[in-house]
Amino acid sequence: MYELANFGFNEKDKGIYRQGLTDIDMQARRWVMQRFEESGLTTHMDGVGNVCGRYGDPNKPAILIGSHLDSVPAGGMFDGTLGVIAGLECIRVLRENNIEPKHPIEIIGTSEEEGRFGGMLGAQALSGNLNFQWLESAKDPKGELLKDAMQKCGLDIHNALHCRRDPSSIKAFLELHIEQGPVLEKQQKTIGVVDGISGVFKWLVKLKGKADHAGTAPMDMRSDAFMGVADFAHEIHRIIDEEGTDKSRLTIGRVDLKPGYAHTIPGEAHFTLVGRDMSEEVMQQVANSCGKVLSSIARKHKLRFEYEQMSWLEPKYFSPKLVDLIEQQAEALGYSHIRMPSGAGHDIQFFTDITPTGLIFIPSIGGVSHAPDEWSHWQDVEQGSNLLLATLLEIANDKVSLES
Amino acid sequence: MYELANFGFNEKDKGIYRQGLTDIDMQARRWVMQRFEESGLTTHMDGVGNVCGRYGDPNKPAILIGSHLDSVPAGGMFDGTLGVIAGLECIRVLRENNIEPKHPIEIIGTSEEEGRFGGMLGAQALSGNLNFQWLESAKDPKGELLKDAMQKCGLDIHNALHCRRDPSSIKAFLELHIEQGPVLEKQQKTIGVVDGISGVFKWLVKLKGKADHAGTAPMDMRSDAFMGVADFAHEIHRIIDEEGTDKSRLTIGRVDLKPGYAHTIPGEAHFTLVGRDMSEEVMQQVANSCGKVLSSIARKHKLRFEYEQMSWLEPKYFSPKLVDLIEQQAEALGYSHIRMPSGAGHDIQFFTDITPTGLIFIPSIGGVSHAPDEWSHWQDVEQGSNLLLATLLEIANDKVSLES
Repeated sequence: MYELANFGFNEKDKGIYRQGLTDIDMQARRWVMQRFEESGLTTHMDGVGNVCGRYGDPNKPAILIGSHLDSVPAGGMFDGTLGVIAGLECIRVLRENNIEPKHPIEIIGTSEEEGRFGGMLGAQALSGNLNFQWLESAKDPKGELLKDAMQKCGLDIHNALHCRRDPSSIKAFLELHIEQGPVLEKQQKTIGVVDGISGVFKWLVKLKGKADHAGTAPMDMRSDAFMGVADFAHEIHRIIDEEGTDKSRLTIGRVDLKPGYAHTIPGEAHFTLVGRDMSEEVMQQVANSCGKVLSSIARKHKLRFEYEQMSWLEPKYFSPKLVDLIEQQAEALGYSHIRMPSGAGHDIQFFTDITPTGLIFIPSIGGVSHAPDEWSHWQDVEQGSNLLLATLLEIANDKVSLES
Repeated sequence: MYELANFGFNEKDKGIYRQGLTDIDMQARRWVMQRFEESGLTTHMDGVGNVCGRYGDPNKPAILIGSHLDSVPAGGMFDGTLGVIAGLECIRVLRENNIEPKHPIEIIGTSEEEGRFGGMLGAQALSGNLNFQWLESAKDPKGELLKDAMQKCGLDIHNALHCRRDPSSIKAFLELHIEQGPVLEKQQKTIGVVDGISGVFKWLVKLKGKADHAGTAPMDMRSDAFMGVADFAHEIHRIIDEEGTDKSRLTIGRVDLKPGYAHTIPGEAHFTLVGRDMSEEVMQQVANSCGKVLSSIARKHKLRFEYEQMSWLEPKYFSPKLVDLIEQQAEALGYSHIRMPSGAGHDIQFFTDITPTGLIFIPSIGGVSHAPDEWSHWQDVEQGSNLLLATLLEIANDKVSLES
């Protein structure tokens, strides 16, 4: 892991800069392929940059162990990478002990998961969730086209659609990932048995009032757009208490005030509102309530309320039998564990409809991720990897039925 | 006024762009000096660009009628300009009626009042409120030095300190200005008899929490810096109810969140807080309360609270006898009027310590100012000008004592 962390490491802020489909990302992938080959895996890079190493029969349905190799700018060394290296370590253990399971195992370091181009390119390609229009038009925030970035890496969008794996060729998909949140650490648990990924909606909200001189307009004659945002933010906890669950989240992450001068009452406020829950019905109730509260606050402050729903992604649930299996294995190994949802997206979410899926979390110190000081204790890494191996062996040797 | 509005008029947004110490501002000043000369005034431009036209004895103490000729970017045609043109109109009326008052009258179109360089250059120069260090170092927001801008206009900072008028040469200072707020219109009054200018403080507040993934961090494990701002903003009305007066103002005009991404909980929030009142004691109480409320909210949200006081300007009071005189004259003319403070700064505030001062407001439609749609009814302009003339005559003919 330390060697892989050198690819894109920045001495100055100690962050890793290994965004998908960049030169340094491709260098890291070639390095990983060499490690796959050294471990005796049948290795190839597919048409979108996923690096794949297979152990066992090339024709039988395989257990895929996947996570991503790219990072956010100034990211940490565990996010994504952990799942690939732990998968490789499982294979090494099997080989060292001369264990050849009934079903083949394939480790996949997926391509461009962090959404530089607004998707999860590698996982979408493998699971058949790509379309050509998007491939042709997707851009990164600096305006570079996905297809141009792929070309620079020696990849061609015309091959991207050929990366899809036939569902009948997949026996299961497993992923080991850091939690990227504070729950396991706070609850002093080593293992998070993840039962699904929260649905998420994103609104762009505009409140429009009247920009006025902060000295001449009395408090009761204002249409202060920021006071509308503040009053709404103040109600967020109530909205969740009334309409949400303990898995609900509502976040205002960006606020732009116009004109944004100290001595001028804000005439407009634009802000993002991101909501999450494990139940789509709850998401709908929370979203409805946000709309009502914003309308009512807008009336009170003499503001106009508009919003645009930028996205609505439904929750994804992992296979109950595989989730149960992971939990049993954690128990058998004597590791402390809880069931939990994931509030962040992961490669695995694209596989829930085509194969049994299971996601394992280990704690992130201080809940930190996507930052240079992202870290996980090596003991937790070891326990997470052992649990991945134990689960893998149960499935690979047909000791459990995953049919639902 | 329409002719003067052509200087800096932008056809596109209909705004006036006549910032202080620019080429177009100097053209406007030269145009005004020609109008002064046509009306028989002894005319000159002083060392900072103030244009002065004097009617009457050059040696006796004069009544100064002043306001500014520069505008904010995309400003309106009444702000400042009204006071100069109305002053000139008063002189024309006196001349047409062959009235020569006992005391001379001087109209001054002041220089750079809108604070392009962070002060009110013209009024500060006249009242002796300049220092050389500031003149040498002051910059506009684009980084241009005041002294360079002056040089381009044919002015030299070494002459700026010579613009000071000896207080014994001034009998009184009068200013007619638009309200730039909604109070007169809302109360259906034509005349605001202004008794002072609110004191104002400006804080730059920082709340520091922890940037986290908006999906992975549960609501009760966050240190969301924006929620701190929102909770504070929510308390602003209570703070004023408890510690302030009906003349108190508290405004959050600018908010910067870091990192400012939709899917990230804001780790830091920086915002401006501007407070005003007519009593410095009340300002102090309100400021103290803001500090306590922010401390308490910071504790609740696990944030660090810091602030920097960028400025603290005490309230300025106009001469009670002159304020009374303006009120009596408004009454005598049959104009509806109220006493009120000014929440905005004006040239006149620099003269309160050296001579009797009086400021007259007329209504701004919709309270709008510093914008292309700034407007005042011509009937109000006429009544304001008549009141200025009536007040002027009382003082110029020694009909009242302004000694306090």
